[in-house]
Amino acid sequence: MTELPLSPLLKRENFQKLVDSWKGKKLAVCGHLRPDGDCIGSQVAFCRFLLAKGIEAAAIKTDPIPRNLESFVGDTPYIDVKDFDPAGWEMVAVDCADEIRVGKALREKLPTTLFNVDHHISNPGYAEHNLIMAHSCATAEILSELFLSLGHHPDEVTANALYVGIATDTGQFRFPSTSTRTFEICCNLCEFGANPAKVATFLYEQETMGRMQLLQSFLSTLKLSLDGKVCTGCILDGEYERTGTSNEDSEGFVDYARAIEGVRVGVFLEENKGKIKGSLRCKDPIFRVDTIAKQFDGGGHACAAGFRVESTIEEFYPKLVRILEDHLQNSQVAG
Amino acid sequence: MTELPLSPLLKRENFQKLVDSWKGKKLAVCGHLRPDGDCIGSQVAFCRFLLAKGIEAAAIKTDPIPRNLESFVGDTPYIDVKDFDPAGWEMVAVDCADEIRVGKALREKLPTTLFNVDHHISNPGYAEHNLIMAHSCATAEILSELFLSLGHHPDEVTANALYVGIATDTGQFRFPSTSTRTFEICCNLCEFGANPAKVATFLYEQETMGRMQLLQSFLSTLKLSLDGKVCTGCILDGEYERTGTSNEDSEGFVDYARAIEGVRVGVFLEENKGKIKGSLRCKDPIFRVDTIAKQFDGGGHACAAGFRVESTIEEFYPKLVRILEDHLQNSQVAG
Repeated sequence: MTELPLSPLLKRENFQKLVDSWKGKKLAVCGHLRPDGDCIGSQVAFCRFLLAKGIEAAAIKTDPIPRNLESFVGDTPYIDVKDFDPAGWEMVAVDCADEIRVGKALREKLPTTLFNVDHHISNPGYAEHNLIMAHSCATAEILSELFLSLGHHPDEVTANALYVGIATDTGQFRFPSTSTRTFEICCNLCEFGANPAKVATFLYEQETMGRMQLLQSFLSTLKLSLDGKVCTGCILDGEYERTGTSNEDSEGFVDYARAIEGVRVGVFLEENKGKIKGSLRCKDPIFRVDTIAKQFDGGGHACAAGFRVESTIEEFYPKLVRILEDHLQNSQVAG
Repeated sequence: MTELPLSPLLKRENFQKLVDSWKGKKLAVCGHLRPDGDCIGSQVAFCRFLLAKGIEAAAIKTDPIPRNLESFVGDTPYIDVKDFDPAGWEMVAVDCADEIRVGKALREKLPTTLFNVDHHISNPGYAEHNLIMAHSCATAEILSELFLSLGHHPDEVTANALYVGIATDTGQFRFPSTSTRTFEICCNLCEFGANPAKVATFLYEQETMGRMQLLQSFLSTLKLSLDGKVCTGCILDGEYERTGTSNEDSEGFVDYARAIEGVRVGVFLEENKGKIKGSLRCKDPIFRVDTIAKQFDGGGHACAAGFRVESTIEEFYPKLVRILEDHLQNSQVAG
């Protein structure tokens, strides 16, 4: 738990009091734009927890739920922001590092946030009550701890949703945030009906031939530079159309570039009609790829950042390599 | 624990007695040919356990240790079978489903097996004492349970080796064998120093450009058949040479074929000078790919099996598709 922006109510033992204070309210459970597994899992779980406690609640969606996460929603009420009438509702935000990330459409309907639970270190604590535990591997891990510490018995949909959040945000228990506690919590979630294999089937075994063709196309572009310290892969203009895919289908491709031995920074460039969306990933936070992204008005985490520029890959690539070269020279400590 | 071929000594509570009976012996800890993470992890862990109990032990290698597993061996004694003088040694086998799989060279030196610990359902119990727990996700899971139930404190190398076995044999906690107990054991292993992120870095982040090129080549061969129920991918003759890789580098490729939506059986065919090595993977054990493999004198698990034939892919592919067609028609229950 971070020290500063935390409401005194949110010592964990006081979470019960907070929940009690929500009786009679209508809570809109919001996540972030372009939702991922931890966002959807946390929205589903928190919404169901509130409903189980007799509090009126619904999850709100701004962007579509990714295809591989749809089945984890179950019968959880999900309202499209377009159809959402905010009268009488208050917002609780999960996994949402800043106010803007809930999306403009929703923020206009609900300008303030009652409660904010998150694991992003950059979260400034924008809600009335904030629970930010930056050491947690996932917002779903924090929620699991809260629910279990209150003696709440999550139903099967909730247990699976929490498990989805943890499994995806740890990269299937591969990222440094995976802890002893992570496994302990997953053990508990399995006891409440979470089914790791079933979850994995939905998450990872609904691949399409189009995505495999897209991956093949991406792999064919992989290029090492700066003595093998940087590996860049691209989705060139028109490849989504050719393979019948969308940008949702290139999720995770950057990891193929990053995972090559000796590579410090993996780069993914997506070209679309004169615009480029770039993603940067490094293995060691010392490389601070967020500061590289910042040079293109982007941002993110120390090990995972992104940016958008108006350019073609042909024009942009040499410029990026120069900037990466300067940056890596200045980060030689871990070189 | 299977009922039949189990020595009465091997009620788990009697494992201590068995270990005591090994005092003064010299135990060669053997695995299977073409070792994987569970094999190496179990060899390392069991060898270190024996040494910690004051029993002379060494792991034996017949095939090379895969590059991404080398770092988990630590200072565990590993003897190449070529240099192994069997005088006075007895064999204990880990993760080895039948006697032949320890390799001819070793079997000639040590024709009998003292102890056999394994999780393959097909293991006939070929040793003097057999501990076969087919519901376990990994041999390393069985060993973890044994060590922990005896109050043994594994050192960091042992804890990581056991974790490697579990993480790899569950496909990073994705296969149906992943249970509540699996997470409970991993939680314990983390307490003894297993480091999931460090393990993952060694396992998955030492990729080579050659392997990426090989994957690209494999993906370009993916072909659906039988109304999308079967997906086949190949490594054609000469591709290993072209990309500077070896068959170790195609580990896991079959999962790309299996993971496509609607696919019941994923097939991987490796062509090498008129010979084919085939791997079959299905999502549902009802398809029993081991029985298909058996038609080509192969074998394996219900969901993962393999075989070898003398043929070219061109000749063999239509034959295989016919056999798969018959087989899938007979397994229509889950179709």
